[in-house]
Amino acid sequence: MWGIIATWRMAKEGIEKAEDILKNQGNAGDAIEIAIKEVEDFPYYKSVGFGGLPNEEMEVELDAAYMNGDTLSVGAVAAIKDFANPISIARKLSHEKVNNILVGEGAEKYASQAGFERKNMLTDRAKIHYYNRQKEMLEDIVPYDGHDTVGMVCLDSFGKMTVATSTSGLFMKKKGRVGDSPIIGSGFYVDSQIGGASATGLGEDLMKGCISYEIVRLMEEGMHPQQACEKAVFHLDHQLKQRRGHAGDLSVIAMNKNGQWGVATNIEGFSFVVCLPHQKPTVYLVTQQDGHCHYHEASKQWLDEYMQTRMAPLKRK
Amino acid sequence: MWGIIATWRMAKEGIEKAEDILKNQGNAGDAIEIAIKEVEDFPYYKSVGFGGLPNEEMEVELDAAYMNGDTLSVGAVAAIKDFANPISIARKLSHEKVNNILVGEGAEKYASQAGFERKNMLTDRAKIHYYNRQKEMLEDIVPYDGHDTVGMVCLDSFGKMTVATSTSGLFMKKKGRVGDSPIIGSGFYVDSQIGGASATGLGEDLMKGCISYEIVRLMEEGMHPQQACEKAVFHLDHQLKQRRGHAGDLSVIAMNKNGQWGVATNIEGFSFVVCLPHQKPTVYLVTQQDGHCHYHEASKQWLDEYMQTRMAPLKRK
Repeated sequence: MWGIIATWRMAKEGIEKAEDILKNQGNAGDAIEIAIKEVEDFPYYKSVGFGGLPNEEMEVELDAAYMNGDTLSVGAVAAIKDFANPISIARKLSHEKVNNILVGEGAEKYASQAGFERKNMLTDRAKIHYYNRQKEMLEDIVPYDGHDTVGMVCLDSFGKMTVATSTSGLFMKKKGRVGDSPIIGSGFYVDSQIGGASATGLGEDLMKGCISYEIVRLMEEGMHPQQACEKAVFHLDHQLKQRRGHAGDLSVIAMNKNGQWGVATNIEGFSFVVCLPHQKPTVYLVTQQDGHCHYHEASKQWLDEYMQTRMAPLKRK
Repeated sequence: MWGIIATWRMAKEGIEKAEDILKNQGNAGDAIEIAIKEVEDFPYYKSVGFGGLPNEEMEVELDAAYMNGDTLSVGAVAAIKDFANPISIARKLSHEKVNNILVGEGAEKYASQAGFERKNMLTDRAKIHYYNRQKEMLEDIVPYDGHDTVGMVCLDSFGKMTVATSTSGLFMKKKGRVGDSPIIGSGFYVDSQIGGASATGLGEDLMKGCISYEIVRLMEEGMHPQQACEKAVFHLDHQLKQRRGHAGDLSVIAMNKNGQWGVATNIEGFSFVVCLPHQKPTVYLVTQQDGHCHYHEASKQWLDEYMQTRMAPLKRK
């Protein structure tokens, strides 16, 4: 058995690359890194890697993490600028004895010394988004809601599991802001003896429930990934509303060591991608009904419109 | 009922200040902040705040976090330089709607704009430790093991609980390295409806088990804090040894909403401080026997020697 599941439609091209590796007995570390890099490199996804939207100072600061479910080794970078593939830096850090999480200038120094590719990650298109948003903010103080982290859980045919995340974080965030994506237990967690989970949404709220760790723990108790995801999301959503009056966006994916998977969300419009030995990379959309999350395959029309919207010409307002 | 528990002997003077607040119906936010500030300000504690030991570039980079157990609000800073009291910056960040965790230059910019006190945190004594360590490293490659984070869990007479941490992290760490202290679920977690926990030791290993979240969760299941701490530490210690061949230092403290408390460690020499309505701030030492952790009050001799060692003249080798 092998399998991979990822947050959001944008993961699809990466999952296709991971499929090639996994079906040829490749390992879950290589597969997930290549899949995440594909998303980081695509300039039209505006919440991950190249083309990611900048912070309030118009700098693209990126967060990424990698975890090995066999050894529980973790590597992560946060608020790192000007490197093409934060996920590869994170994976390399996971091999270090200590100093596995590096932020800001220290992370950049490490990456530079380790020979990672330098790249200005701010695209002209992202700049237009920035200027347009600046203009909108003068007219309208509603915060921008886009914070689509790519997160993946991967199982290879040797039973090794990995999880990885990559994001440019909240658009117009403060310089140095870190969300849940590079934080173990919140943005990601994996244990090859149980399973793995990853989250996307409002990092500041996802972390209040250590949601990825909680999902893995529920799977350890014997829950199916679907049940574990729903329980964790609805419980945290309830706690946040009860104590704070509102809950931010919470969406999660999970896979267990047998390749069974699950998803849950408290929003409309969450999409995800799954690939298994007898299932080509498939995009699903999630809806909520009767306290449960249901999913159906995305139509050809939805998929076409998705890419057209992402790549539509953008003008400065 | 009210109470406060903290990692390490170094917390004692801070806990005495917190006692004054808590016994006069002060709140758990003020009490814990003042207690941590006291530790940050004392120049002879070499793992927290002023006098903290520097990273490999001889910079004192500090991490701190604050969590409110009523609202689950979190604030944290990591790899921040040249500010007197990281805990106060973390607490202020916990009041922000988003951008609650800031690292490096972004954290410094925020703190500067918010008017926090600038201070060069590198003492002459810390420099001597740095130079001596540099010399030792030429002769001996055994890594330095000191990484004593101050972590506290506090309950006030209104039932509000808080947790806070502050540390200069691993001596000779890489620039930008972040340990467990500012990471929710790993270095700290609190829920006023259950209890709170905090950890100290090798951050890179503590975080692999999301140990503070796990302890709170075990208390939610009905465990006494002592039982929850022991279970979490021994389980993680076992997992780390099984999967990685060794486990770093793991020490934890916890208190529940009724003021019951517990501690556990996998090392010799862990000390902690407790204060309750009918118990003056008391320093205990922990020993392990028969798979359990036992504690006894520190003797006057131990306490005297502790401070003498901390303040003994230090010469450059």
